[in-house]
Amino acid sequence: MRIDVLTLFPEMFEGVFGSSILGKARDKGIASLNTVNFRDFANNKHNTVDDMPYGGGGGMVLKAEPIFGAVEHLLENADRSAEDGLEKRKPRIILMCPQGRTFSQEIAKELSAEDHLIFICGHYEGYDERIREFLVTDELSVGDYVLTGGELPAMVVVDAVVRLLPGTLGNEQSAVTDSFSDGLLEYPHYTRPAEFRGWKVPDALLSGHHAEIEKWRRQQSLERTFQRRPELLKTAELTVKEREWLEKMSMERANPAETRE
Amino acid sequence: MRIDVLTLFPEMFEGVFGSSILGKARDKGIASLNTVNFRDFANNKHNTVDDMPYGGGGGMVLKAEPIFGAVEHLLENADRSAEDGLEKRKPRIILMCPQGRTFSQEIAKELSAEDHLIFICGHYEGYDERIREFLVTDELSVGDYVLTGGELPAMVVVDAVVRLLPGTLGNEQSAVTDSFSDGLLEYPHYTRPAEFRGWKVPDALLSGHHAEIEKWRRQQSLERTFQRRPELLKTAELTVKEREWLEKMSMERANPAETRE
Repeated sequence: MRIDVLTLFPEMFEGVFGSSILGKARDKGIASLNTVNFRDFANNKHNTVDDMPYGGGGGMVLKAEPIFGAVEHLLENADRSAEDGLEKRKPRIILMCPQGRTFSQEIAKELSAEDHLIFICGHYEGYDERIREFLVTDELSVGDYVLTGGELPAMVVVDAVVRLLPGTLGNEQSAVTDSFSDGLLEYPHYTRPAEFRGWKVPDALLSGHHAEIEKWRRQQSLERTFQRRPELLKTAELTVKEREWLEKMSMERANPAETRE
Repeated sequence: MRIDVLTLFPEMFEGVFGSSILGKARDKGIASLNTVNFRDFANNKHNTVDDMPYGGGGGMVLKAEPIFGAVEHLLENADRSAEDGLEKRKPRIILMCPQGRTFSQEIAKELSAEDHLIFICGHYEGYDERIREFLVTDELSVGDYVLTGGELPAMVVVDAVVRLLPGTLGNEQSAVTDSFSDGLLEYPHYTRPAEFRGWKVPDALLSGHHAEIEKWRRQQSLERTFQRRPELLKTAELTVKEREWLEKMSMERANPAETRE
């Protein structure tokens, strides 16, 4: 997979694209991770990439020209690769912005099936609307909080996507990820020492009984999800017994006085 | 504000903590941004920070000792600063993990009132539960997607918090942020040229009529929020006329056939 990130701050990406899983995916040739400073496509003598908003108001607006120019440069290069006989899908051109669709694991899976992703990261300012309307294929937000620019959100999306590409993770790490797949929060983990400052590992985990351990973990996942993210239980795969337990707990929560009697 | 990040990958943070708004906040002395490699607190001959999970299963679990050791080292240093006569609040010790509270702008505001934040970033593995139970004050998640580690989420939280500290942003940038405060998505922005490849800036914005511009922007915000994030409208501050418009739009959406007649 080829990933290009348009940004005014390419230096922010070096440490992230070079370390850990992303660094390994890059070294193994699974993902090519590049940054493009769109200031290089400004086409004016002061290399200006932003300007005052029409209609007035605070803040500067990113101009359409440098971003169209940078994306089209990347698309031309991609077309030339296609002429080499490699049939490829059209790139997804993704604008990182607070108005975008909220990023999720489903979108990560969808993007991991693409050949080429282009991310556009703005900074402080808004984007000229013509970028949104006539250039990009997707708009994504990573959550409902205000960040300085699209750089950290782009890194988040790149990490979530690249770790899904075949060959990026070893088998052992994949197994960890799979524990999310039942729709519940993870159960508590413990490792040595069995006693740390007087705090002991639960007996069930030390028992060596595989069935007992599984039962303990499942119950812990269920309780934790009920306490912290009850909305996840609506879509989780639960047994009849688990549904019954859940109903009982929900009633106790709704009527705490009764349970105390 | 003092911010310490416990991580096995301190090199991921350099570019981010040194650039843009975070770099400026650091240079101005508004925020001190530090990383601590908790491998330095492993206290065993192979500098091991993880171990097999009790009860079996894939993946490794981060041990309690190095993380307790690193945090306590930071707390001792903070206590010494306190002895210098500077009365400070106790640090918030924040575990970045998928089971945590979903980060939001409200939590960013809350954290921006603290003196000292300590972030703990795990990587691939789970954490020994005793870290969660006996050391941390908060658990945060940035969204429902699977990431390689807590590093990018910690950067996201740090960026959202530091940009709220007094003096970090210039007045002009603050104004941009404030446009989120009415609970609606932002209206479209346009800057020069007035025509780009045949695509024109809307007439209302070129009119010079302040009232007309405000009306256009407000209506655009409302429409965009209705189309993309209708759930935000439940809590947004709307006029009676806007509520009426919204009801009409909602009915049209619910009964598209009728509106076509």
